[in-house]
Amino acid sequence: MSQRDAIVLLSGGLDSATTLAIARAEGFRCHCLSVDYGQRHRAELEAAARVARSVGAAEHRVVSLNLSVFGGSALTDTCLGVPTGGSAPDTIPITYVPARNTILLSLALAWAEVLGAQDIFIGANAVDYPGYPDCRPEYLAAFERMANLATRAAVEGRPTRIHAPLIALTKADIIRRGVALGVDFGLTVSCYQADEAGRACGVCDACLFRRKGFEEAGLPDPTRYA
Amino acid sequence: MSQRDAIVLLSGGLDSATTLAIARAEGFRCHCLSVDYGQRHRAELEAAARVARSVGAAEHRVVSLNLSVFGGSALTDTCLGVPTGGSAPDTIPITYVPARNTILLSLALAWAEVLGAQDIFIGANAVDYPGYPDCRPEYLAAFERMANLATRAAVEGRPTRIHAPLIALTKADIIRRGVALGVDFGLTVSCYQADEAGRACGVCDACLFRRKGFEEAGLPDPTRYA
Repeated sequence: MSQRDAIVLLSGGLDSATTLAIARAEGFRCHCLSVDYGQRHRAELEAAARVARSVGAAEHRVVSLNLSVFGGSALTDTCLGVPTGGSAPDTIPITYVPARNTILLSLALAWAEVLGAQDIFIGANAVDYPGYPDCRPEYLAAFERMANLATRAAVEGRPTRIHAPLIALTKADIIRRGVALGVDFGLTVSCYQADEAGRACGVCDACLFRRKGFEEAGLPDPTRYA
Repeated sequence: MSQRDAIVLLSGGLDSATTLAIARAEGFRCHCLSVDYGQRHRAELEAAARVARSVGAAEHRVVSLNLSVFGGSALTDTCLGVPTGGSAPDTIPITYVPARNTILLSLALAWAEVLGAQDIFIGANAVDYPGYPDCRPEYLAAFERMANLATRAAVEGRPTRIHAPLIALTKADIIRRGVALGVDFGLTVSCYQADEAGRACGVCDACLFRRKGFEEAGLPDPTRYA
């Protein structure tokens, strides 16, 4: 059987690195896509390139998109502060990027069609981020249905599958899974405001989630803190 | 009643100019969005700015997105030629941009959420472009269903509506409708390979469709040809 191609959305963080390792373990030839959408934590994009090489991706491409033209998120609007110390659990945090996963999946769909790939992997997770509507299984199912009416490939009988292998895992589960697959989490950056060397602040929500995950997994935290 | 906000996808071509005029006539305060996705026909973007001003849009913003990183379309891949002289009617033309409307609508959805707008207008048309899967009503309905699971606004009870007022019109119908609403089609550019001054080639598929539309509408063609 010839190896199948997959698009893997790769942010450079812990979740997408594990997602890439899972796609590789399932036998896919992985084409990694990062989107430079004007996010503050640019260190993540450099981390994405390191992770792609380390896990053995076929290639890694970066699409630039100036989402900051719209404003509205602490991750792209430099007038809003990044929250620290833990957000309320059931609210949508200010770091929410409007329609982010819809945009990321749409770009992945475009590249998939050009390559003839039918599989798209995304590290969406509904456990740690209950406030993000576009991390829920019913959203991903609706995207897949839409995608299968959208493209020439679908019209010609080659449907798209959206894979979200982390959707129901806790952060600790994701870390255990990644370590079991050989992911070097020291290469990844999760921090919303990492410095230019990729060192984490240790106090933003993303850092708190990540640190707690390593504690709960009972594994050493390889994060480089500033 | 306060005026409602709408996002209008505006390419600078004939269809989207008419769509904007319809949205204005329906009473919407129109926020126009153009996407610079590396298309060859950059004159369209300048036309979009002129059309937005002329029709009375509230604002016009341009998002840049280097889709050419993926290749695969004559409109973004400079290695492929633009077809002239008429494509076969039921095939998908090489000028098809992979997942184009999905990407455009996703970006509109992001801006809509930031603005609190619930209405998105797109000039999709299923009559002249039967080969484009993402111009069909069933595709647009699936996008709307997906959008209503994707955003904070939808979760909070403010659903998104996708309007495609041209979906079932012929090019001649669109032209008659636009003229009735006062659209100056001399400001629009449809040509796939317009020159820097916005003058049309007269031989690409887009030029042929447009010329035929004016003939069938029995109206003078204000297009500036090179």
